[in-house]
Amino acid sequence: MRLKFLWPGKTRNRELRSLQDQYLAKISRLEPCEIVETREARGLTERASERILEVEAQGLEKHLANDYIICLFDGGTEMTSAELAAFLEKASRESSRTITFVVGGFLGLAERVLRSASKRLSLSRMTLSHELCRVVLLEQVYRSLTIMKGKHYAK
Amino acid sequence: MRLKFLWPGKTRNRELRSLQDQYLAKISRLEPCEIVETREARGLTERASERILEVEAQGLEKHLANDYIICLFDGGTEMTSAELAAFLEKASRESSRTITFVVGGFLGLAERVLRSASKRLSLSRMTLSHELCRVVLLEQVYRSLTIMKGKHYAK
Repeated sequence: MRLKFLWPGKTRNRELRSLQDQYLAKISRLEPCEIVETREARGLTERASERILEVEAQGLEKHLANDYIICLFDGGTEMTSAELAAFLEKASRESSRTITFVVGGFLGLAERVLRSASKRLSLSRMTLSHELCRVVLLEQVYRSLTIMKGKHYAK
Repeated sequence: MRLKFLWPGKTRNRELRSLQDQYLAKISRLEPCEIVETREARGLTERASERILEVEAQGLEKHLANDYIICLFDGGTEMTSAELAAFLEKASRESSRTITFVVGGFLGLAERVLRSASKRLSLSRMTLSHELCRVVLLEQVYRSLTIMKGKHYAK
């Protein structure tokens, strides 16, 4: 299983950035994985939201190629950690494509990116800040891998 | 509205601890609030889980008094951020009691503590590590307060 985590812009909060690196290091010990931080739309006000989403979509699409795409989306499917583990196991068994998780920026993801996903995943009914969302996702993917590999991991 | 966040043991991960302090500072600018880290059961193996939960329950109960208790619990109710905001607004309108969120340690909460809660709340269908759970909770309560006060806060 090859894993990729894709989002527009560097994580700005220093602690969330550090946690992101910690979980990436843990996941890397189990499966090959990388984080790709793509072009972020800067210098536009929120009123230009369609333009922001379009600029960011173009940046993300450069790294999606033939990947198996899972988009994080508020209206997506919620899963338990065990269900996510089973889902990833099945996806990796059925295809050798890279499994790529895409997390939107401040405004989310363009409709076009959401439509390209094989799965839309919601981490919570609650709205998490997009940077915290990245960390929760990484923690969950790490947890899923430990479930798949039968390792003991903190509750 | 007075808010309290209660859990056994200090948050060990340095970045999560720092985030916890950041969100507490933000919440404090909107409502009086505090974090109380109670006695943690140490030196017991996971096999002594009932003893651990009992020791930690006793520590938590010293700080619950007459509070309005919301326990975080995997099997609890999921809410959207707006629903949590409405719920907190209603609770504070109906009573002047401190609203206390209780988060368990590594093994969760004793059944007795769960039974004492007016509400059992689940942040996600996924199982979050108990330290990450604290940070997500604080972020959500901060978000709820900004929703209640009509402030602009990052998505």
